[in-house]
Order: sequence, then C-alpha cells, then structure tokens
Amino acid sequence: MQTESRNFTEQSIVIVGVGLIGGSIAAAVRKRFPECKVIGIGRNRERLNLATERGLLTDWSDQITSATISHGSLGIVCLPVDQIAGAVRQLVDADCELVTDAGSVKACVYAALDDVPKGRFIGSHPIAGSEHTGFENSDADLFVNRMCVVTPVNATRIDTDRIVAFWESIGSTVQQMSPDEHDRVLALTSHLPHLVAAVMSGCITAELLPYTGTGFRDTTRIAAGSASLWTSILLSNSIHCVASIDAAERLLMRFREAITTGDAPTLESLLEISAERRRAL
Amino acid sequence: MQTESRNFTEQSIVIVGVGLIGGSIAAAVRKRFPECKVIGIGRNRERLNLATERGLLTDWSDQITSATISHGSLGIVCLPVDQIAGAVRQLVDADCELVTDAGSVKACVYAALDDVPKGRFIGSHPIAGSEHTGFENSDADLFVNRMCVVTPVNATRIDTDRIVAFWESIGSTVQQMSPDEHDRVLALTSHLPHLVAAVMSGCITAELLPYTGTGFRDTTRIAAGSASLWTSILLSNSIHCVASIDAAERLLMRFREAITTGDAPTLESLLEISAERRRAL
Repeated sequence: MQTESRNFTEQSIVIVGVGLIGGSIAAAVRKRFPECKVIGIGRNRERLNLATERGLLTDWSDQITSATISHGSLGIVCLPVDQIAGAVRQLVDADCELVTDAGSVKACVYAALDDVPKGRFIGSHPIAGSEHTGFENSDADLFVNRMCVVTPVNATRIDTDRIVAFWESIGSTVQQMSPDEHDRVLALTSHLPHLVAAVMSGCITAELLPYTGTGFRDTTRIAAGSASLWTSILLSNSIHCVASIDAAERLLMRFREAITTGDAPTLESLLEISAERRRAL
Repeated sequence: MQTESRNFTEQSIVIVGVGLIGGSIAAAVRKRFPECKVIGIGRNRERLNLATERGLLTDWSDQITSATISHGSLGIVCLPVDQIAGAVRQLVDADCELVTDAGSVKACVYAALDDVPKGRFIGSHPIAGSEHTGFENSDADLFVNRMCVVTPVNATRIDTDRIVAFWESIGSTVQQMSPDEHDRVLALTSHLPHLVAAVMSGCITAELLPYTGTGFRDTTRIAAGSASLWTSILLSNSIHCVASIDAAERLLMRFREAITTGDAPTLESLLEISAERRRAL
C-alpha cells in the first residue's frame, strides 16, 4: 500500500559522524543507490579520507557549511546522544533541507532544538548495532529487517514519508511514535538491559570470573560497551530509566520474596512468565 | 605435578540421567576411553535404547540395583537438583563404590545425605551447558577447558583424586572448594544471572518485543530455560541467592541514585567498573 509513495528519492545525503552506524548507513546507500552522493562529515580528516578510499563516501568535509551541502540534501546525524542537537542545528543553519538522526534517545534532542523551525528535524532510531565500533565494521545490511522508530513532531506528511522511505529503502521496518513514547519504550527494551547487565557484571569480583559460564557471558555481554556513551544515554532519558529501574526492582523483590519463603509455585510461575516472554522473541 | 596420580582409571561408569549433561559425559568417555563401560540409568527405556544405539552407552537399565552395577564402578548422577540425593543414596545402597554428580547446588545434597557413609559421595559441578537439552545434543567436548568444581567432605585423598582425575580426563580444569563456598560463588556467577535475566524478560510486555535489539536478546537468553529446573536450583540455594539479590539491588540503587541526581562522573565510573570486569573475561 505504501510502496508507491515511499521510494528512495535522495540525490545527496550528508552523514555527520562516520562510525559504525554512520558508516553502515553510507554502505547501505552506496550498495543500493550508487547514483546518490554520500557526503561524510567528521573531525578526523585522515579517517574520512580512509572511508572515502574504501568507497563508503563520495566526498567528505570536516565542517558543516552550506558549501558542502547540496541543495535538497538529507542530513543524518550519527553522533553520541549529547552531540546530536548541536549538529542538527548546524545542518539546519547550513540550509540542509531535512535532518534526521540515529540516536537512542529522542525527547531531549527535540527539547534542545526548541528554537529550530518545526519539522526541519525528524528524529529516527534504527534499533540495530553491534559490539563493534568504527566504519571499518560497517555493514550494508545492518538495518535489514530491523525496526527503526521515527518520531515526527509538527512535520509535514511529505517530510515524514521521506524519512520513512529512507529507512525502508535500506531494509528497515518503520514504526512511528512520539519522542516521549519512544523514550519510555526504549528505557525498558534497551536502557534497562544495559543497566542490568552492568549491575550483574559489577556484582562479580575478578576472582569469581573463572566460575562463570555461558549464562553470565550472555547476560553481561553489553556491559562491556562504552561507559561514556551510556552515561549520556542514561542521563538523557533519566525519568524513564528510573521508572524502568523501579519496575525491575519491584519484580526482583517478588522473586526474592518467593525464594525467601520457599514458595515454589509462585517462583515457578514468575520464571515461567519470563521464559514464555523470552521464547516469544 | 599432579599428572601421574590423575590418570583415568575407570573401567565402568554408571550415569543416572542421560540428558544433555549425562549424555555428554557418556560421549566424552566413549570418545577418549572406549574400553570403559558406560551404563545409563533412567526411566524411559525407549530413550535409553536410542542412546545405546547411538553409541553413547554400552548398556542401560531402568533401575538402580547392584545387579546392574559392576564392582568398582563410579556413579555419576546427572539429574535435576531435587532428585540428586535420592539417586546417590540408591547408588550407595546398590554398592556403587564411589558416587559423584553434576548438579548446580551442593550443600543441600550433602545435607540430605547425612546418614550416608562419609566420603562415598563427592559432589561435582561441571560449569558447562547449553541452551539445548536431551542426549541428542550431547557433545563429547562439552567439558573441555571448562571449570569443574569438586567439593569433597570427609573423603579420602584417593577418592578425591579419582574424581578430579575423571573430570580432568575429559578436559576440565578442576577446582576444589567446600559445598557452601561453591554455593556462595555460584549464587553470584550463575543463579543471580538467571534471576536477573528473568527479571529483565518479565519487565517487557509482548507488544514491546519488536523494539528489542541484540542487547535485550543477549541479556535475557538464559531466561528461556526450564522454570521448574530453575525453581529447584534457586530454592536449594536460597540463602546465598537472597544475599546475591541484595547485592544486586544495592548496586542497582547506586545506579538509580546517580541517574536521579544527574551525577555523570559517578554513573560513568560505575559503568566503567562493570565494563572493565566484563572485558576481563
């Protein structure tokens, strides 16, 4: 039904921040739409040159200026959460027609862009990633069959459709919701798992590591991620994160109560609900 | 240093419970020591027949009797935690020379065997497994380079060495500790991760599943395990499990406090400690 209106129409995209996500977006576009220009913007000239040599970018710049941005370009900010709003503002100031991002938190970005003309920015969050970093690990199919949440606020239908079409064209399934609803959902599905993995890993002292098995390894894998990136994410979504922590604590206390009182039926029922939920994935 | 005294000397082993762990022990012994008899004991004749046809067992029985147990046999109980003590007692009564097990909790088994002659049972816990079940998924190398904890209580040096040699012969690294110390350590390295994975999975409603990524998948993988098996494990180790829950809750509250107050340095430092611990694995 939506296929006709949602074809890829970009002639030039500008990616600010060419790391794993920015590089994978570049790779995804270069693979599928080789006629589209892909401009990379970053601070490290050497790495931008390398990304261009590897065919990810058609050109690059170390500054966001109108000279580097073709008329009608789509800007995509792939920076850590606390740097997104600043880069969006610079892109809008440099006459970038429409700007989106790939950040894990959305409401704080809109709040910081209160004075930017409504609808020039439409937030996105492709729920995809890997434990690797850097454009060297770019994957042209990173977004295939992955969910991407798009959070239009006072945007036109045409602009919203354009952002949706962009993500669908590189393989994503798109769902629209408000920035706040996005943040509430992701606090549970992504930010809480990171916190819980960190708690689990932090509970173990080094001398206990030899006694861990695959369960511990799986449960704590994401805890190895960047502490500074995750500090930004968690603090940018603090209200929903705290609500998620409280929900987790309440459930943990129900398990504790069942264990303390030796209440096997309740414990088994709690475990079964969690097991069924997980098996549904 | 210990190599000479710790050669594999078994001529006949009796495995009670031929599932993934029992089957993998059988496979490990059959592969390395084909002259050793491997007798399987279980309730389901059809499945025992099948395991024999597949070469895992040299013979089987559906009863633990002295008729089925050769003189000098080593018995290995690979049943759920709440069935271990009963099977150990039956093996001892049937004149099985020395008995061990593969359970995740140790002190409760010793407590239930208080009237069994000291030293006839030496508990073991090979820290190995998989999300799969059943002897069809047996892996002759499941124990290679994995830790196995052995918990002798009033056992002779010769018997302890025999159990250690058994696990080392099929590839494990063996560490000895007391049953209670084992349970304290495993509450943190294995039982708490399971609880935390279950809490994480239980916090998500079905309609949020599409918004989960690889982080949620990894963190909750073990939550899909058998609710009844884990009910036994957690209730059999309730005191140490509750202590682990309390440690996790205290750390979770430190994260919560740092997020609530917007204390970036503390949050980043907590995340960094957890990340370093995980990276050390």
